[in-house]
Amino acid sequence: MTHPSHFIELFFAILALVGIWFSISNFSSVKRALIGRPMRTAELHAQHNKLIWYIALPILSADLYSSVAYGPESGITELVKLGNEAKWYIIPITISTVVLLFILIISYIMGILAYPNGGGAYAIAKDNFKQRWVSLIASGSLLVDYILTVAVSVSAALEAIVSAYPIVAPYETVLAILCVFILLMVNLRGIAESAKIFAWPTIGFAACMMILVFTGLFNEVKHGFVQPSTPPFGSVPKGLTILLILKAFSSACSALTGIETISNAVPIFRKPQQKNAIKTYIALGTITSITLLGFAYHLYVRGISPNPNNTMLSQLTEYYFGHGIMYQLIIWFTFIVLILAANSTFTGFSQLAAIVAADGFLPRGLTNRGDRLGYSNGIIVLAATASLLIIAFQAHTNALIPLYAIGVFMSFTVAQFGLMRRWKRVKGPHWKTKLTINTIGAIITTIVALIFAVTKFTSGAWIVLIVIPVLILFSLAIQHHYRDVAKELKIDLKTMRPEANRVITIVLVSGVHRVVQNTLSFATSICQENLLALYVGFDDDSMKKMEAKWEEWGNPCRLVTLKSKYRSVLEPLSRLIHLIEEKEQFKSQIHIVIPQFIPHKWWHNILHNQTALLLRLWLLRHRDVVITTVPYHLKN
Amino acid sequence: MTHPSHFIELFFAILALVGIWFSISNFSSVKRALIGRPMRTAELHAQHNKLIWYIALPILSADLYSSVAYGPESGITELVKLGNEAKWYIIPITISTVVLLFILIISYIMGILAYPNGGGAYAIAKDNFKQRWVSLIASGSLLVDYILTVAVSVSAALEAIVSAYPIVAPYETVLAILCVFILLMVNLRGIAESAKIFAWPTIGFAACMMILVFTGLFNEVKHGFVQPSTPPFGSVPKGLTILLILKAFSSACSALTGIETISNAVPIFRKPQQKNAIKTYIALGTITSITLLGFAYHLYVRGISPNPNNTMLSQLTEYYFGHGIMYQLIIWFTFIVLILAANSTFTGFSQLAAIVAADGFLPRGLTNRGDRLGYSNGIIVLAATASLLIIAFQAHTNALIPLYAIGVFMSFTVAQFGLMRRWKRVKGPHWKTKLTINTIGAIITTIVALIFAVTKFTSGAWIVLIVIPVLILFSLAIQHHYRDVAKELKIDLKTMRPEANRVITIVLVSGVHRVVQNTLSFATSICQENLLALYVGFDDDSMKKMEAKWEEWGNPCRLVTLKSKYRSVLEPLSRLIHLIEEKEQFKSQIHIVIPQFIPHKWWHNILHNQTALLLRLWLLRHRDVVITTVPYHLKN
Repeated sequence: MTHPSHFIELFFAILALVGIWFSISNFSSVKRALIGRPMRTAELHAQHNKLIWYIALPILSADLYSSVAYGPESGITELVKLGNEAKWYIIPITISTVVLLFILIISYIMGILAYPNGGGAYAIAKDNFKQRWVSLIASGSLLVDYILTVAVSVSAALEAIVSAYPIVAPYETVLAILCVFILLMVNLRGIAESAKIFAWPTIGFAACMMILVFTGLFNEVKHGFVQPSTPPFGSVPKGLTILLILKAFSSACSALTGIETISNAVPIFRKPQQKNAIKTYIALGTITSITLLGFAYHLYVRGISPNPNNTMLSQLTEYYFGHGIMYQLIIWFTFIVLILAANSTFTGFSQLAAIVAADGFLPRGLTNRGDRLGYSNGIIVLAATASLLIIAFQAHTNALIPLYAIGVFMSFTVAQFGLMRRWKRVKGPHWKTKLTINTIGAIITTIVALIFAVTKFTSGAWIVLIVIPVLILFSLAIQHHYRDVAKELKIDLKTMRPEANRVITIVLVSGVHRVVQNTLSFATSICQENLLALYVGFDDDSMKKMEAKWEEWGNPCRLVTLKSKYRSVLEPLSRLIHLIEEKEQFKSQIHIVIPQFIPHKWWHNILHNQTALLLRLWLLRHRDVVITTVPYHLKN
Repeated sequence: MTHPSHFIELFFAILALVGIWFSISNFSSVKRALIGRPMRTAELHAQHNKLIWYIALPILSADLYSSVAYGPESGITELVKLGNEAKWYIIPITISTVVLLFILIISYIMGILAYPNGGGAYAIAKDNFKQRWVSLIASGSLLVDYILTVAVSVSAALEAIVSAYPIVAPYETVLAILCVFILLMVNLRGIAESAKIFAWPTIGFAACMMILVFTGLFNEVKHGFVQPSTPPFGSVPKGLTILLILKAFSSACSALTGIETISNAVPIFRKPQQKNAIKTYIALGTITSITLLGFAYHLYVRGISPNPNNTMLSQLTEYYFGHGIMYQLIIWFTFIVLILAANSTFTGFSQLAAIVAADGFLPRGLTNRGDRLGYSNGIIVLAATASLLIIAFQAHTNALIPLYAIGVFMSFTVAQFGLMRRWKRVKGPHWKTKLTINTIGAIITTIVALIFAVTKFTSGAWIVLIVIPVLILFSLAIQHHYRDVAKELKIDLKTMRPEANRVITIVLVSGVHRVVQNTLSFATSICQENLLALYVGFDDDSMKKMEAKWEEWGNPCRLVTLKSKYRSVLEPLSRLIHLIEEKEQFKSQIHIVIPQFIPHKWWHNILHNQTALLLRLWLLRHRDVVITTVPYHLKN
């Protein structure tokens, strides 16, 4: 009966309470103002209009394309401590990143060909591996990475703002949390991810980046491709190791997260869906490559160094355009696109969580659609965990990067191996080419994932490498529990039917007054026999008084009076239950009827004993008794 | 149905939950380790041994005598900004304080003569004024001041430690909160306030202070009563105003809080009780006066200035004894005595709160004795509010002083006026002398209270002057509520008896499985007619399936299937209740039976819908229905 886990229970109870409030405040004006009127289930399928590919492109590319704002910078940050001579490495590293981007895009095109209805890494793994844990690696690593995407994107968005307005630097964490809260509300309201309005900021950002790249090119044509500020090319700085280069490469690869978005979204394309999705992939790859390469080259030519309070993108823009309108445009487009990237993750996370939960590997609550038809619980979990990360890492993008992307590459790897198995099994036209492509993809993503794990291990990746296996173990335990429960609850409809039992009803009375009268009226309505009233007194005097009063009241039923040495109703009631259970040899059902005051004003609750509530909680958990609460609504 | 107060409700619900946890974790090992085994009510009267006066003296004087550690310092802090020339004012100010101390002690001796069974300001006011608000001024101001005593004493205790060990300065607030937490636990364990062990630290502290005073005197005899460091005497510094002097005087009066302790404790003295208590008062007054005057004089001679990181007591000790053993002794005795002062306040606060609550002016929960026979709720409220004050004022004694003492002087005033009325009414031997003494006392405490209110108003006293009236209004509202409820609940035993009613029972079913079978078995045991099962489906398909299954199950009772457009059980159930209420013209009692899973492991709760809990909460608050929970304890 001793629970050392009471503190943890308390914590969960508080969490649950917040959830409960959100659920029961169904008609609350606060909730309505924040997330809008509830929507009918029937409204679910009325929203999708199929998209032309060049509209789908900006909508689906926010996640990947926005990463150019922090990818190259986090790569070079690793090397810059070796001095000016290491700066040229940004060029080979960016080229490797772009090569990897194309390999991944081609691999994902294979995925589209295999699963035209859209299939993420989890679906591919589920379809091709019997072992449940393989698909759980895919889902676990993707879920963890979605959380990191929100943390990283929002932090990077605020770093853009801080570059332009250093005065807000001390409030970075608070503002980041505020952004997550706004994203939470927006997603609980359930704005469709595919709304066309989301195309414009990404188009604007891409246009700005192109202007930046071509302004840079123009500048270099005019002032020379080697400028006074250009660091030496090809030099090997002292202290450079392969490990350091690999570390820089894996940091730069954080720019590749978000590739999976298009392949998950095939169904929203206009027909021919596969062809259009492939077109989009190629266009996105081309634009991203140009941006990454151009951006990296200009950074090198200008010899720009990372600065924690001024992003390299901001520094470069300042150099070309000063602090004018163009600078403001780029900063604000960067901010909006990064926030959009975080926003699209909310849909991705909650949908994946709902799919995995429907398979029984995560709490079933994640499959519930909220008032506005989004998977509210998943949305809330994502916002909460991302906020915790932002607080823990104080909204510093470069501190979060080592945790990031490793999950994405793990899920990439699982997906590639899944596709390999599929081509071998299903075959079909050109299957050998497809198999070759995915095999190359699998090998490369495995290598990249390993590079991540090794080079980033000590700077934070170990957290992810612990969290993902733990998540998998939990998922397996959860499914185990659901199966056991299902087995336990299953009954044979023909033989196991409800059967009436002997019921012994105990009504708790604290005196003779209207609440007790109300409660006893109900009790006598439902049972005429085996009814007894229990009075717990703290001293002999009060017990005698009660017995006399009961007599005067005409003995409505048998009264049992018990004395509590410890001033608590729990202990004598517990004793009585035990006694009855033994006497009846556990054959009768014990039924406790508890009166409960419901005061008119909520703050009056603190003026009345909450014994009813306490008793109910304790009895339900520790005894096999049925509990009835008879409310008495106070008029005052 | 719209509640804008939902957020506040949530806050109170969380508070309640913490309380609930503490209450239901009756057998929890954590609670047992912290506060010990529960004690029987019968153990209550087995603890008091009557005390000889010279043992009672140190036990009861911690609160008053410990104030010498901060009283003179907070007085001179007000003046020191006028420069060195203002320092001599510490002498006249301390003399006035000592004069006031004697007037108060004589007045309180009158109180002992009038109420030999111990009577605080609240009891005196209650006995002598018909107007309830007069006694509520006394109780309200005392309760507020008790809270401040804890905050001020603990802060001052930590300032003593910080003076000796500047390294802990940044952790002052955290350590202060920790001290309050330890005091909370100690008081929930219920160590008797009158334990003789508490005499020693105060004796030790008093001895140290005497040694300090006489060492100073010796030093001055040897090196002259005017030393190079002595500031000029009798000069009037520029900028000195009457207001400033009064402000300094009222700050110094913070040394006078705690006088009431002895008069409240008359019953713990050996016989003749009154005589012994009076002896104690005179001895305490003498020792306190010598200490205050000697301490103030030496501070003046040495020209010591206040320093936020080194108390004046510490500076003086350093000067006479260096950083040796004597210094350590004085610092640690100061610390312990100040903590003891805070400790004795816990008993004072919780007892006064229980007395006022028993009169119906505060929530009745404050009269409950906890497991260890102390008034736990009062103890918890005191610890919580004092902690909030410490956090808000970052454990700075001098920031808290302006809020302090005004309450004490308000209650002193009420007590004096009460005693005046009593002498006029009761008369008795020497009543005219006694009346004169209390009249002088009343006039002086009124003046001092006014000086406090005026001089400290802007630096924080306004908070107290708002809080006390608000507390009084709340108290009156609470009593009003209790009276109304009592009136509403009262019934005529002869005519109003429990009456059986028609009951309509609705069993919520989510399918056909063991939990539903269990629930329906109970429902059929208690009622044969007017029983119906309600199934809420989210789509037509599930509803049809359920109907077929029910048929196959042999139709155990009538099944109603309702569709929820908004994926919630609440709304269709609410509709059904409404319908039945109208059809039955509110003559039958509606009874909802809800199945509830009780998982084997607590963390499994997050894997199951908490619909039962949510429904119960909402229905109890918003509908007049009886709710029965039928638990099903999962084996897995």
